[in-house]
Amino acid sequence: MAHNVAIVGGTGALGRGLAARWVRAGVPVGIGSRRPERAQQAADLVRELVGDAAAQLRDGTNREVVADADVIVLSVPLDALEPTLEDLAELLVGRIVVSVVNPLGFDRQGPYPVVLPEGSAAERIAAACPQTAVVAALHSVSSVVLEDVDQPLEDDVPVLGDDEAAVEQVVELLALIDGCRPLAAGALRLAGPLEGLTALLISLNKRHRTHAGLRFSRM
Amino acid sequence: MAHNVAIVGGTGALGRGLAARWVRAGVPVGIGSRRPERAQQAADLVRELVGDAAAQLRDGTNREVVADADVIVLSVPLDALEPTLEDLAELLVGRIVVSVVNPLGFDRQGPYPVVLPEGSAAERIAAACPQTAVVAALHSVSSVVLEDVDQPLEDDVPVLGDDEAAVEQVVELLALIDGCRPLAAGALRLAGPLEGLTALLISLNKRHRTHAGLRFSRM
Repeated sequence: MAHNVAIVGGTGALGRGLAARWVRAGVPVGIGSRRPERAQQAADLVRELVGDAAAQLRDGTNREVVADADVIVLSVPLDALEPTLEDLAELLVGRIVVSVVNPLGFDRQGPYPVVLPEGSAAERIAAACPQTAVVAALHSVSSVVLEDVDQPLEDDVPVLGDDEAAVEQVVELLALIDGCRPLAAGALRLAGPLEGLTALLISLNKRHRTHAGLRFSRM
Repeated sequence: MAHNVAIVGGTGALGRGLAARWVRAGVPVGIGSRRPERAQQAADLVRELVGDAAAQLRDGTNREVVADADVIVLSVPLDALEPTLEDLAELLVGRIVVSVVNPLGFDRQGPYPVVLPEGSAAERIAAACPQTAVVAALHSVSSVVLEDVDQPLEDDVPVLGDDEAAVEQVVELLALIDGCRPLAAGALRLAGPLEGLTALLISLNKRHRTHAGLRFSRM
């Protein structure tokens, strides 16, 4: 397995943290953005974090980094999903897309899950890209924790998808991250609750002043 | 705090396990069922498990056990929810109801979350019982594990509700169970993903041949 990862919308803490942890593990990563200067800024931040491993890092437009990649992490806000997919659809054919999209709303009471007609953001992507193997993962991993790259994670990461080979490849990629235990957990139609649970985690974090992550007992 | 708990629909493994663990901790518990003979059978199984602590255990119809209780655990299948609430509505006024209801469907591919128009079974109960403090909890605790009463749990239990005092009381009650760490986690509107996550846990359990429970890292 020699993967080449692109992180679409990879300029936030989650994208930077993932990129840093993967390049340190020897995985080539491209950070993409609609605006290449923002991708470059994010990549420069990652280069500061990882030293020599930065040789594995590229940056560019979303289209540029996707063109080189076989696994594409889609890390965009829900309302950017449609234009992003329109922009990239033909490039995603035959590849693996990892959705980390959390459809959440926020109001005075805090975060709440947004129920999509497709059941989840991951299923929305799968419906828009029928020739792409869509995998849902990483929803519950705190971006703050992810970007604190010298700390191992302490997270179990359920990995969902209908293409078992794609799920297996994403599990292998995530297992390269120190302290991350990816677990193949079933079909993509289970993604809705996993995405929505992020609202509960944010609420829990606010009450208990932490950056909680998910783990499973008895396994 | 001296609680008196009723478990409505308490004849399954979850009801029996909860009853056994609470009576051992000194909490009076009534196991209820539509059919009192079934409640008695379940209570007899619990009595075998707990020895002398069984003095704290009662059984009867749902209405009988609810009449004596200030905290009522509602452990019924989704399709029994409406008739159960019709039967009990006036008895629930002014009390705390703990919903452990998981709206799940099953087909050849396994379990899947059922999205309710109210957002969750807990919110459905709250809509039907506006004078009741509804709390959602315990969805992710395996009934098999719960009934294995000599083993401490290893579970974090998010507790959700809009009535903070009720949430606090349920947290205190759950903290009496060995190995159970209840965590106030926010508003009742966060219950949907927590209920649906049970489908993911069942799927995970089948794949990894375990009875996984939820935990949170970094707290």
